[in-house]
Amino acid sequence: MSMPLGRRFVAVDWGTTRLRATLMDTDGQILGRAASDSGVQSVDPGRYEAVLGDTCRDWFDADPALPVLMAGMVGSRNGWVEAPYASPPCAATDLARHLVAVGDGSRPMAIVPGVDCRSPDGGYDVMRGEETQAFGAGVQDGLVCLPGTHSKWVEMAAGRIVRFVTFVTGELYAALTQSFVSRLAEGPDDTEGGAALAAQLAHLPGGLTRQVFQARTQVLGGFASGRAVKPLLSRLLIAAEVAGAREVFPEAKTVRLVAAEPQLTPYRAELEQAGFAITTMEPEAATIAGLVAVAGGLDFSGVRRQP
Amino acid sequence: MSMPLGRRFVAVDWGTTRLRATLMDTDGQILGRAASDSGVQSVDPGRYEAVLGDTCRDWFDADPALPVLMAGMVGSRNGWVEAPYASPPCAATDLARHLVAVGDGSRPMAIVPGVDCRSPDGGYDVMRGEETQAFGAGVQDGLVCLPGTHSKWVEMAAGRIVRFVTFVTGELYAALTQSFVSRLAEGPDDTEGGAALAAQLAHLPGGLTRQVFQARTQVLGGFASGRAVKPLLSRLLIAAEVAGAREVFPEAKTVRLVAAEPQLTPYRAELEQAGFAITTMEPEAATIAGLVAVAGGLDFSGVRRQP
Repeated sequence: MSMPLGRRFVAVDWGTTRLRATLMDTDGQILGRAASDSGVQSVDPGRYEAVLGDTCRDWFDADPALPVLMAGMVGSRNGWVEAPYASPPCAATDLARHLVAVGDGSRPMAIVPGVDCRSPDGGYDVMRGEETQAFGAGVQDGLVCLPGTHSKWVEMAAGRIVRFVTFVTGELYAALTQSFVSRLAEGPDDTEGGAALAAQLAHLPGGLTRQVFQARTQVLGGFASGRAVKPLLSRLLIAAEVAGAREVFPEAKTVRLVAAEPQLTPYRAELEQAGFAITTMEPEAATIAGLVAVAGGLDFSGVRRQP
Repeated sequence: MSMPLGRRFVAVDWGTTRLRATLMDTDGQILGRAASDSGVQSVDPGRYEAVLGDTCRDWFDADPALPVLMAGMVGSRNGWVEAPYASPPCAATDLARHLVAVGDGSRPMAIVPGVDCRSPDGGYDVMRGEETQAFGAGVQDGLVCLPGTHSKWVEMAAGRIVRFVTFVTGELYAALTQSFVSRLAEGPDDTEGGAALAAQLAHLPGGLTRQVFQARTQVLGGFASGRAVKPLLSRLLIAAEVAGAREVFPEAKTVRLVAAEPQLTPYRAELEQAGFAITTMEPEAATIAGLVAVAGGLDFSGVRRQP
């Protein structure tokens, strides 16, 4: 299959819980937006093309050949079709050579592969969607931090992804707020109180499995209010992530933080505390810029059909 | 109220999920056992005396004055009555002076207080039930390790509790097996495979929030089977706990491990790996010995009525 990409295309960020589509020029101009709650976790196999068509109806009707470039969990085993991982070092143009085409060919549609990484220390990591954001972040040399359910820290060198690691910060937060602090937490969140307490407790000897218990006991002991429970827990987990990243990348100086609130403020604070020089970028902007970068590198030769 | 404790009494371990009653001599001889699934989490307020009566019916009928000594979550805010915490340093006899009496007085019944601990580093910890096991462990000077949902490491000096800390190892295991590895884990567990992999991955730079993600990715990458997922996760969490305890108690040499399988084997292995000299004891034996130690120190003067 060839993918005759015109100046216009649809950039799609299709994750676990959301589908976000943007009508683009390949020079980066945004012409329109559409979105759906039909994330990968809620789309039945065989329904992907229909869901995409419903979301982009007007654009597709207006241009039957409008190409679609997709990133995210849509390329996972549980998505539309599994797109095999690319491996570091890789540039945006490398991803463009390993697109996986979907659909019947009447409209050019392709999924950007994820990236995996076997670290020298024995760790193995995978990402889908964040690789596109990392390219979109526009970092030539330095770290890109992408907070989330499974936060990614991506090391870039000469504009290529050379290594990355994962911290399950968001997942731990979700799991712990549903378990041992669920009955103590009260709203609305006292974000500043939680941050102040975390600044003391993030240095408790014994590590994270000791520290997180404090989100419960400090309230039981009357040293904190229930309104500080969730902010404290969140901040302890973020501090552990940043300390961990400092350990993985001891030489790193600069970080581009790709985050929106409520992650932006606490991550920025912890990163500054750890001595990183920070610039920030909105996640949506990074995704779109990343898809434009991949689209700009398309030479079609590497586009594979699904098996 | 006075509590005319005779030679016989009922030692009760009443935790969140179970009630275990043992008919005892104060010299430690076990005369009978009874148990119930009516843990504190499933007993309605006002039903504690009835549940206890049902469980110990025959013993109570035979001896209307048979005393009952209880430890565990039965003394928590959500239990029969809240027993205020004792604080370190404390001996078994100190707990005996702070019993909280329950019931209408027709039968001597009392709850052993829990212990709290405000560490110099700012940490605050609480326990209910483990303080009794710590005394039952019979350690004069050294550490007692009590693995569990909220593992406790108790520092003993001259037979007194002088300090303790908590690691939420079991809680994290339960929360994580229900979240991001739930779809990958297969049975039966490959315990040895998980332990071998954990030995490599427990030293990954970046800490626990990086390491636990490996329980997912090592399977996705084909480096481990689904049968190793839960054992790997468990072992990583135990290794983090033991490393954390080593950090909290850098000078400690000996540990009495109060554990039964499946915790006993992995904890023993990780403790030995960390250079501790270990002795072991069954949790049930520790509870009973601890209640005997408290009962032996009863002087009744400190027994308080519930408010």
